[in-house]
Amino acid sequence: MTSDVGTLVLLRHGESTWNAENLFTGWVDVPLSEKGHLEARRGGDLLSAANLLPDVVHTSLLRRAIATSYLALDAADRHWIPVRRDWRLNERHYGALQGKNKKQTLETYGEEQFMLWRRSYDTPPPEIALGDEYGQDTDPRYADLGSAMPRTECLKDVVVRLLPYWEESIVPDLRAGRTVLIAAHGNSLRALVKHLDGISDEAISSLNIPTGIPLRYDLDADLTPVRPGGTYLDPDAANEAIAAVASQGR
Amino acid sequence: MTSDVGTLVLLRHGESTWNAENLFTGWVDVPLSEKGHLEARRGGDLLSAANLLPDVVHTSLLRRAIATSYLALDAADRHWIPVRRDWRLNERHYGALQGKNKKQTLETYGEEQFMLWRRSYDTPPPEIALGDEYGQDTDPRYADLGSAMPRTECLKDVVVRLLPYWEESIVPDLRAGRTVLIAAHGNSLRALVKHLDGISDEAISSLNIPTGIPLRYDLDADLTPVRPGGTYLDPDAANEAIAAVASQGR
Repeated sequence: MTSDVGTLVLLRHGESTWNAENLFTGWVDVPLSEKGHLEARRGGDLLSAANLLPDVVHTSLLRRAIATSYLALDAADRHWIPVRRDWRLNERHYGALQGKNKKQTLETYGEEQFMLWRRSYDTPPPEIALGDEYGQDTDPRYADLGSAMPRTECLKDVVVRLLPYWEESIVPDLRAGRTVLIAAHGNSLRALVKHLDGISDEAISSLNIPTGIPLRYDLDADLTPVRPGGTYLDPDAANEAIAAVASQGR
Repeated sequence: MTSDVGTLVLLRHGESTWNAENLFTGWVDVPLSEKGHLEARRGGDLLSAANLLPDVVHTSLLRRAIATSYLALDAADRHWIPVRRDWRLNERHYGALQGKNKKQTLETYGEEQFMLWRRSYDTPPPEIALGDEYGQDTDPRYADLGSAMPRTECLKDVVVRLLPYWEESIVPDLRAGRTVLIAAHGNSLRALVKHLDGISDEAISSLNIPTGIPLRYDLDADLTPVRPGGTYLDPDAANEAIAAVASQGR
């Protein structure tokens, strides 16, 4: 039996200038690097080659996801589809680590604390100080958030703030039979995949989503993935990239 | 007395590859030229310098307007605002002239016919043939238009198809007090300015809107422009460009 539910496509943004410099980024709004631009266009080429053409795109409010969606959709000749943006698709807020070098943080705090902040499901880094140069207290794009504005987040926090947007904005597009592209971030996409595939709090820590390679999910009528984990449009490149992401910061 | 109505900002896309080649474009979805990219970014710089920061952007479904809005908003650090797109903001459909060289068309048909097609308010060019390589019969972005799908348009037709979008989608944003950017085309913006400023069918033929220079309209409570014709953010460049557009195709 085929489902009338549309197809979900996840796309993690390509390399940013801070990825290249090995800094914790979180909500800091850094641009894509030159390599990141190429990754985004290649993601669009993969969509086009697979004839997997989005009807609508959802992005975070961060430039690296917005640019990725723009470049990928332009490459796939789908630049004209409706666009929806929401802070709930943002990367995990990295708290006081935002702007810090990953290698230095590892050396200063040691392996155990470092991995706890990076990979624990429910332990957030320390809060970022109000007025910190890498904070977003006065950023107009978050002016309406009020008490929902985070000053740090663990992955669990991301799941909690992401799911209302999934239910209220993305699911209706899927129920309407649309092919839905989500252009977002390592941790907001991990949060979504955790929900979709029913991954445990422990197992999610070892799941890495590679950049720039569209990940396709076909869904049952109850929005359960037909194939757990979905299908990368370029599986070989995905496997290679997953290995590379796992060693990041080392 | 100040009005609670938001501010309207019109931005005509910069040079496309076909502007550069002097071809009639209409609904053919050509990209910006390198100069057009620079014009778009400069438009964003002008918005930023004037602290005229859009809260929402409306674009056509054509790449040259979409790219212009993306580049301008990126330059103004407003890449994250909501985006709305609609075919009703498209350039005038140029009918059978789409893809034709302007100079050759002038030589073939003579000055009178050429100027009638270019500047008459209510005389459209001949319809484009179904299946013409420069037609959009099978373009998926227009699949829902049905009988509203044009095969040629005069400026009057553009006014007629634009105004429902103005009333239903743009006016509510203005009534909500937002700064609204419209990134669109020479003729869809002329159609809107004709409506806003109450310009006659005759007088509109000599109105040219320059590319890449934001045009600001402050509006009364009844949406009448406080200053007829609005205000260009770079008046000197606008005057220079208006003279250049007027001589286009000669």
